[in-house]
Parts: sequence; structure tokens; C-alpha cells
Amino acid sequence: MLKAVIKEAKLKLVVEAVLSMVEEAKFTFSDKGLEIKSVDPANVAMVKVLADASAFEFFKSTNGAIGVDLKRLQEALSSAEKDEPVTLQMNEESQKLAVSMGRIQYELSLIDTSAIRAEPKIPELSLPIMVELSGVELKKSMKACSKVSDHVKIGMTNEIFVIAGKGDIDKVELKMLTTEMQAVRIGECSSLFSLDYMEDIAKVAGKMEKVRLEVGQDYPMRVQFMTEGILVEYLLAPRIEQD
Amino acid sequence: MLKAVIKEAKLKLVVEAVLSMVEEAKFTFSDKGLEIKSVDPANVAMVKVLADASAFEFFKSTNGAIGVDLKRLQEALSSAEKDEPVTLQMNEESQKLAVSMGRIQYELSLIDTSAIRAEPKIPELSLPIMVELSGVELKKSMKACSKVSDHVKIGMTNEIFVIAGKGDIDKVELKMLTTEMQAVRIGECSSLFSLDYMEDIAKVAGKMEKVRLEVGQDYPMRVQFMTEGILVEYLLAPRIEQD
Amino acid sequence: MLKAVIKEAKLKLVVEAVLSMVEEAKFTFSDKGLEIKSVDPANVAMVKVLADASAFEFFKSTNGAIGVDLKRLQEALSSAEKDEPVTLQMNEESQKLAVSMGRIQYELSLIDTSAIRAEPKIPELSLPIMVELSGVELKKSMKACSKVSDHVKIGMTNEIFVIAGKGDIDKVELKMLTTEMQAVRIGECSSLFSLDYMEDIAKVAGKMEKVRLEVGQDYPMRVQFMTEGILVEYLLAPRIEQD
Repeated sequence: MLKAVIKEAKLKLVVEAVLSMVEEAKFTFSDKGLEIKSVDPANVAMVKVLADASAFEFFKSTNGAIGVDLKRLQEALSSAEKDEPVTLQMNEESQKLAVSMGRIQYELSLIDTSAIRAEPKIPELSLPIMVELSGVELKKSMKACSKVSDHVKIGMTNEIFVIAGKGDIDKVELKMLTTEMQAVRIGECSSLFSLDYMEDIAKVAGKMEKVRLEVGQDYPMRVQFMTEGILVEYLLAPRIEQD
Repeated sequence: MLKAVIKEAKLKLVVEAVLSMVEEAKFTFSDKGLEIKSVDPANVAMVKVLADASAFEFFKSTNGAIGVDLKRLQEALSSAEKDEPVTLQMNEESQKLAVSMGRIQYELSLIDTSAIRAEPKIPELSLPIMVELSGVELKKSMKACSKVSDHVKIGMTNEIFVIAGKGDIDKVELKMLTTEMQAVRIGECSSLFSLDYMEDIAKVAGKMEKVRLEVGQDYPMRVQFMTEGILVEYLLAPRIEQD
Repeated sequence: MLKAVIKEAKLKLVVEAVLSMVEEAKFTFSDKGLEIKSVDPANVAMVKVLADASAFEFFKSTNGAIGVDLKRLQEALSSAEKDEPVTLQMNEESQKLAVSMGRIQYELSLIDTSAIRAEPKIPELSLPIMVELSGVELKKSMKACSKVSDHVKIGMTNEIFVIAGKGDIDKVELKMLTTEMQAVRIGECSSLFSLDYMEDIAKVAGKMEKVRLEVGQDYPMRVQFMTEGILVEYLLAPRIEQD
């Protein structure tokens, strides 16, 4: 049994956060809320989204899981305005998900959860450095790096946080004094990441006031942000440095 | 003899209403105003546009008809602002249509009216149900249906007006209580229509405050709207239901 | 030695003015400012840009020249807001140009100036007619002409300034009484120009309040505008009239 009402902008965030990695996902519901965990087809990144029951205008669910085609859910959401409440309701008989906004109701067929790739076990990594910056800043720096390269180095040296893209011809660098940043765990390390993935993540994180990055030495990075009862977390594997 | 002045937005509506069905049309002028009647190349839809002399800032014409390439007239209009008066004037000598806005004047060659497909005789159908909804609502529901299907069922049952798209996988439905609607003729019937056509029509109708739909049982639908002296009417043939 | 600070919008104008003609250009610096002169690959148009030292927020330079890939500089500028100061600094050691805005710094590789096509000598033509119109008006009329033709006739007759496009089918004309214009040198002549070039020029000039056109009889046209210490000048060869 599931009946939940949530503002369009929030559900869209949930959908787009996962859609940046996979097209189909298992939505696991309990009385605590909604949980989604996915790993991208190339095994480079994992995403975890937790939408607490408090993130919903109304939330009532028993334990259960449904398989969702994220593109089709995203398309259905395009019929709603940003602040419009969207109702999700499982039709137990037809095994379809009703998605309604105003006078429009979609009835989406579900995917058998056994046909969806198993949820990853997301490791609890301990990462030496941590910074928080705005989503806008993250997005802007990824866009700048993508002008010159297809990978980006993220790390800290001499208490300066550095995002750097280095192409064959040009180079771009964003430096932030850790003393200017909101929350910081200082260290000396850096890792290289694929800009394809980082741009996808930054696109989702772009509207967040605060995005937390945790980085190690040639090690996966954790990207995390939270908004009104919704937690989004990415774990992104590093690229091997070749230069 | 023709000299007419009309605001860009109005002439654009006239042009786009017809352009949604055909690329070339016969514009028939009289002292009463402008009349255009066309049928689309697949014989699925007819459109009639009447622009009363009162829709114009200035209107003076003898009886006559000209053949217009609608795309080229639309392009000429793109030089004018929404509220800018556009002057249409026939040059009897050169048999060209001067279209002027501000300091810019286009001189458009006309098409021999005998080379344009004959105007359809639009039948006077008596249709059992009628509703009026806003253009925005019509456009939004056609867009939603197009996400799941390529045809849309429009009709009434138990005094509820229903627009429904049903694809192989998903379904979408918009329901409106007839008691909530502006003008209503109640009945029990529905017909299926091509979304290609309905989306084109909804695009033109999208800005109208009030659009009238008249529907029968597996029968053509009439879509009609009016604004400041301009009447637009579509007659759209049904599709044969296959499920 | 070069260190210069300039608002993004101004540097963007400089870059786009030249980029409308060539992709690589020689930037010549002196204590007076920046000078760029280029001729397009087809030898149809020349562009000269002078950015006076006063156009910069800060300007300090010795005599020297660098070869710039304009597309890459333009891309770097997209990281800055319109009013954001952008710093240009030559790194003498690495022979790279540092372009910084906020916390982001690009390091652009330069092109050997000997690999860039030699700067043209721009002739001092004496042109019989001159008018000044707004950039918006110029852009709008070029767009209108491009709907019907691929060339445009610009000139004056009976003290009326005329921009005219004449296609195989349609015609468009913009007429301005010279008595209504800001600055005027009256004459009787006209020349034909390629709309490809004129649209590129009009795009750059589109935001200017005042654009000066100087025209002769089947002779090159000079297009000139100035804004806050930046002078842009085009010299465009005429097309041979064929009708």
C-alpha cells in the first residue's frame, strides 16, 4: 500500500538524481519514506537517495518495492508546475502507479524489480578531506573544466582546495582558501575524476545551497547534499592518472 | 482593392491557425472582412478562419481572393512586434501583396488561386456533447497524452468530460466534472483522434481563454475559439478505434 | 609584460567582433591599449578593433603581440558574468595567457604570431554617403532581408536611405528619411553586399546605440561603432550586381 503526496520540484530532484546514473531503479518504500540505491552501468558511480516521510506533504506506505522507469516518471512530472503537489498511489490490482497532478492522472506500468540490476552495497569510506561549496560554484567549475579537458582533478594542497582541468592545450583551475569555506576537513591529497560524471552530478547539485565533497588520494569521492528531507549521495570512482 | 491594418498578434493567429493544416491558402476578402477555408492534404481536418472587418485597425476591400504562401507571410510578420500594426496592401499592377511594419516593407508574390486546392465545403454537423475549457488546459492535456500515445480519446461519460491517452505501456487521463465547466451540453459518447493533429490545433488554441469542443460518437470533432473579431474553427475526423 | 583587467561584456565584444571574421588573431598591445586587425579568409571583409587603455579597469603593457585562438578565449569568458572583471596576464615563462574571473583561472596556450595570417593594411576610403542608425534597426533589417534574399543593397536616393533585399520571389525594403536620422552625409549611390557577412556584422553591432554606415557606388562599405573606449570598424567589399 502506498499513497504519497509530494511537491513536483522535490520528486523531480529525486528522479533526476537517480536518472543521472541509471534509467530504471528500484524504489523501496517503508513507513520511514523512500530509498533508492543504484550503480551506473559502467560501475563508476553509485547514487543513494533517501526521501524521508517528512519530505512529503502526505505519506503512508507499508514496506515494499517497485521498479520504476525514471524517464517515464520524469515525463509525467512535466505536466505539473514546480510547486504543485503530485500524488503517487499504487494500484495493487493492476500493479500500476498512478501519478496525478491537478486534473491529470498518469497510470504508469511498473518494471518487475527482479529485472532491475541489484542495489549496490555502498561502502562506508573514510575520506581525509572535506569541503562544502555552493551548487552553483560546483557547476560553474565543472563547466569551465569541461572547456579544456575531459577529466578534473579535485583535492587540497597547502590548505587550498583546488579543482583543476588540464587539457592538451589549455588549463583551468579554481582555487578556494579553506579559510573562506563553510565546513572543512584539511588534508593533502587529490584524485582525478571523469568530467562526464561530474557534470551530470553538478547538474543535479546545481541548485543546492551547499554541496559537500569528500576526497582521498586516488580514491573515490563522496558528493552529498540535502534539502528539505531529501538526502542525495554519490560515490564516484577515480580515474587513473596518466600524466 | 485591399488595404487593411491589423495588429501583428492577430494576423499571426490567422496565419498560424491555417498553417497548422496547409502551407498555401486562398484569402477571400469582402467588405465584411477576410475568410479562409482549407482542408489538410490528408483530408483529416478542415480549418475555417473568419476575420471580421472589426478585427482590423483599418479595413477597406472590394470582393476578391488572393493565394498566399503562409510560411512567407509568417516570416514577414517576424519583423513586427506583437502589438505593432501591420499593413496589408494589394498592388494591383504588380499583383503583389505589400506587408509593412514600421519602416520595413515586404513585397510578397502571390500564388495563382487556381493553383491552390479548392476550398472545402464545411459540413454543419450536429454534435451531441459540448464543453468549453481553457486553451492552456487543452494544450497541457494533449501534451500529457502525447507522452504515452499517438492518439487521444475525447468524450463524456456520467457527466464527466474525459480526455484520455492510452499507450501500449502507460495511460494518462484528464477528467473534468461538467458541473465545474463553463458551458456544457451533456451526453454519452466519445471519439478517438490523432494526437498529431490535436497537438497542432492545441498549439494555436493554447493562448485562448476559452476553447469549445463538440464531440459525437466515432464522429468528427469541432474545435472552435474566438478572439477580438476572429473566429477559428477546426473540424477533425475521428480515427477508427482498434482496441 | 601585460596585465589588464576588463569587464566581461567589453572583452566579449572585442572577441566577437573579430571572431565574426576569423578564428585566430594577433592581439597587439602597447601602452595605448590593444589593437587587432584581421581580414577574413575569403578576402571579402576586414575588421579593426581598437581597445583604448581607458576601456580597461586596469591596463599595463609593454609593446608586444600575442596570437590568440578566439574561440577558446570566448569559451573561457563564458565562466564570467557580464559585469565581472576579467584579468588577462601574460606568463612570460610559459608563454601562456592567464585569464581569470573570480576564483576560476584559465591558462590559454598562445599561437605563434608568425602562424597567423598577416594583418591587412586597411585602406582610407573616402565614401560619399554616411548615415547613423541604431544597432537594433540594422540587425532587424538584415534579418528581414535574409528572409527573401542572400544579398542586400544599401544606398541612398533622393535623400532617402534604403536597405533592400530582392529575392527571386519576394522583396523587402527599409526606407529612412535622412531628415529623421542622426548624422547624415547625403549622396546618390548604392552597393550590393553579401547578407552572410552583413548578418554577422549586425549581430555584433546589434547592441550598439549608434552604428555608422558609409557607402559608395559599387564600392566597399565601412561599418563603424564605438562604445566606452572600444572602436570596431569593418570594411566590406561589394558584390557584383547581377540583375
